[in-house]
Amino acid sequence: MEFLVRFETRLPTTLSTEEVGALKSAERERALELRQAGILKKLWRVPGRPATVGIWEAPDATVLHEALASLPQFPWMDVNVEALATHPQEV
Amino acid sequence: MEFLVRFETRLPTTLSTEEVGALKSAERERALELRQAGILKKLWRVPGRPATVGIWEAPDATVLHEALASLPQFPWMDVNVEALATHPQEV
Amino acid sequence: MEFLVRFETRLPTTLSTEEVGALKSAERERALELRQAGILKKLWRVPGRPATVGIWEAPDATVLHEALASLPQFPWMDVNVEALATHPQEV
Amino acid sequence: MEFLVRFETRLPTTLSTEEVGALKSAERERALELRQAGILKKLWRVPGRPATVGIWEAPDATVLHEALASLPQFPWMDVNVEALATHPQEV
Amino acid sequence: MEFLVRFETRLPTTLSTEEVGALKSAERERALELRQAGILKKLWRVPGRPATVGIWEAPDATVLHEALASLPQFPWMDVNVEALATHPQEV
Amino acid sequence: MEFLVRFETRLPTTLSTEEVGALKSAERERALELRQAGILKKLWRVPGRPATVGIWEAPDATVLHEALASLPQFPWMDVNVEALATHPQEV
Amino acid sequence: MEFLVRFETRLPTTLSTEEVGALKSAERERALELRQAGILKKLWRVPGRPATVGIWEAPDATVLHEALASLPQFPWMDVNVEALATHPQEV
Amino acid sequence: MEFLVRFETRLPTTLSTEEVGALKSAERERALELRQAGILKKLWRVPGRPATVGIWEAPDATVLHEALASLPQFPWMDVNVEALATHPQEV
Amino acid sequence: MEFLVRFETRLPTTLSTEEVGALKSAERERALELRQAGILKKLWRVPGRPATVGIWEAPDATVLHEALASLPQFPWMDVNVEALATHPQEV
Amino acid sequence: MEFLVRFETRLPTTLSTEEVGALKSAERERALELRQAGILKKLWRVPGRPATVGIWEAPDATVLHEALASLPQFPWMDVNVEALATHPQEV
Repeated sequence: MEFLVRFETRLPTTLSTEEVGALKSAERERALELRQAGILKKLWRVPGRPATVGIWEAPDATVLHEALASLPQFPWMDVNVEALATHPQEV
Repeated sequence: MEFLVRFETRLPTTLSTEEVGALKSAERERALELRQAGILKKLWRVPGRPATVGIWEAPDATVLHEALASLPQFPWMDVNVEALATHPQEV
Repeated sequence: MEFLVRFETRLPTTLSTEEVGALKSAERERALELRQAGILKKLWRVPGRPATVGIWEAPDATVLHEALASLPQFPWMDVNVEALATHPQEV
Repeated sequence: MEFLVRFETRLPTTLSTEEVGALKSAERERALELRQAGILKKLWRVPGRPATVGIWEAPDATVLHEALASLPQFPWMDVNVEALATHPQEV
Repeated sequence: MEFLVRFETRLPTTLSTEEVGALKSAERERALELRQAGILKKLWRVPGRPATVGIWEAPDATVLHEALASLPQFPWMDVNVEALATHPQEV
Repeated sequence: MEFLVRFETRLPTTLSTEEVGALKSAERERALELRQAGILKKLWRVPGRPATVGIWEAPDATVLHEALASLPQFPWMDVNVEALATHPQEV
Repeated sequence: MEFLVRFETRLPTTLSTEEVGALKSAERERALELRQAGILKKLWRVPGRPATVGIWEAPDATVLHEALASLPQFPWMDVNVEALATHPQEV
Repeated sequence: MEFLVRFETRLPTTLSTEEVGALKSAERERALELRQAGILKKLWRVPGRPATVGIWEAPDATVLHEALASLPQFPWMDVNVEALATHPQEV
Repeated sequence: MEFLVRFETRLPTTLSTEEVGALKSAERERALELRQAGILKKLWRVPGRPATVGIWEAPDATVLHEALASLPQFPWMDVNVEALATHPQEV
Repeated sequence: MEFLVRFETRLPTTLSTEEVGALKSAERERALELRQAGILKKLWRVPGRPATVGIWEAPDATVLHEALASLPQFPWMDVNVEALATHPQEV
């Protein structure tokens, strides 16, 4: 089942440049794993914002939550999830 | 997977009392079938409103949509669906 | 450039069953043409609502508007368009 | 009487890992007591958020408030309560 | 248990003056009964609007819903209910 | 004239337990004075929140403001005031 | 006591030009009376909308409501009232 | 002084095709006059909606209102006006 | 041209009592100058909030902005400006 | 393609006057470059707020995002982007 997931990430300003760099690099790595696992299917950037819109696929919302919570930046992400149904024209 | 489904039903005032009665009776019958199929698990009334909050279970949002769309009053229902994940304390 | 397009369609209740059928069939046909033209890339149904979320691609918002306005049900669609930027991980 | 209770918990970042661990463990323990007392009936996680949706039962809103306020994380919870009426189909 | 109930009533313009008069008179009569039953405790008018704010008392939201639904103008009322807890200073 | 006053109080986390205790005790004392003066008529707690809903009476909004501003916790209160008119059924 | 009153008026399209003319003329006349009575103090038009913002003065919200309800277009006005307190700089 | 003006136009479905055509043609003509008068400076279409965003210039909001109200489709336009100040970089 | 200006001021809690006193006194002084210049015409307090509603007059939004920005508390003010048109009844 | 871009900038209060001055001067310089590159076409100030509304032009939302992200104050800007289509009257 697919989900439209929107999140905005605001890292605390108390992190050092190195910490931010390490976080972002770990984030990319984990995102890549989620792509290879077929959970993260597509990501767009919301222009002008530290935010993304994405299409995610998971058997249910519990697995989706675990995938999102496994992202290193998760503690600083404000996430909104919308369940999507298959459109008849897509079948 | 479970969903929190909220809907509000406002039948058109052009329906006759008989039509309304028939619709409501068909609605109850279909809801009963959905309960027996394990899709509609629990329903509450929102006090003061022609609205319900309910817990629904379906393999995915597509099956949920079909269940909701099979309700005779569906054309006059304003529906909002929220995907729910299992809480760790429930396992 | 890609756009996230969300629309909800509420046909007037004064249309006959035949008119609705003809409109829906014309809608599917036009949507198919827009898919073949590469403008409509993917469509999902919002569960419980007469609404879709979709990914559309067009050189700019003017061409996108023309594509949306060419849909036979356009006069009864409430449409929201969000511009999407490419995510660095997608490159 | 049942209530739909939604809350989001954001612990202050100044707490140490030990303090967070102790709080979470105390929270689970108190939640368990509220379940055994029949006040907390069911909990779901909102996917992607540090938030829950739950069904709570209490004789009135005063007892419900006391139950919620007895949770160790209450000072950092943003809580919304919605009164639910019994649906005629449930009787 | 007490509830803060807010409602706005907009009767359809197709009703005749007599029908409106009869409805309003029946509304007052039923409201009086609810007052005598101790369910409707206090009512205020929202200045400038066909709306009221009131304090209602009922054992639970189900009884409250039945009281509200027994008002003759209920089909044209948009009602919002908020559960109230006793304030420690009131005890 | 009566007012529906809703406020939510969030004391800063930098206050010591003693300071919070002194503030709360001063708050109760001042609230009692306002009750005796007939300005604060009735208070409810919003379940799950550090918030109250209340009925206040004052000759005008200026006197009401002064009463609210005299509360020791006023600097940390987020207050909303709604003017109420007498309902014809109350006369 | 002063109030900030905002209203938007949308007359039904079923009224004839004569009826609209008569209503508008009666509205102006009643507004003039309310000005002379010192209740309506100042009116502005919201640019681009069939709406006004105004300063009204009345002993309380009940008298204000009666003044607003005495306007011939009241049944088609959507009104919002905000209580104002005297600013210390104005004294 | 410049204004950002946003409006959405929904003509009633009871108008005949000829009436709609005449209205749209009169609208274009009046818009052209407002451009020539320097009041309407620039117009964009909101993609997917019967709506425009525009930059208008007028000595004040009263003259702007008169310009907007002179548009033949004004009775069916929902208009929002935002006052703009000159940006220091533009001087 | 007149503007309805609403602002809410929340000074940082890090300011000393002296600094707050000096700011408030400078604010009053500057407000007085703006009154004498005919820019600030009338101010009300929003009951229960550190907020004001006011009528301001300026040739355009640029001059209004400069007047608002000249207030010593401007960095801590959240300001909303609404352009007002002259009402035909005021002419 | 043109975009309506609205942003509000709130620099952290921990920056020194020199840092703020340097940031603002770098911001103006970069904005000038974006104007010369034809990306930033026009900017207005929102009266009373540390905010701007502007018309930007870019081949797509990705290029627009890069331009916005190149502004030195970008980390403290809250940005909203709206895609604009060409209006038929502008052709």
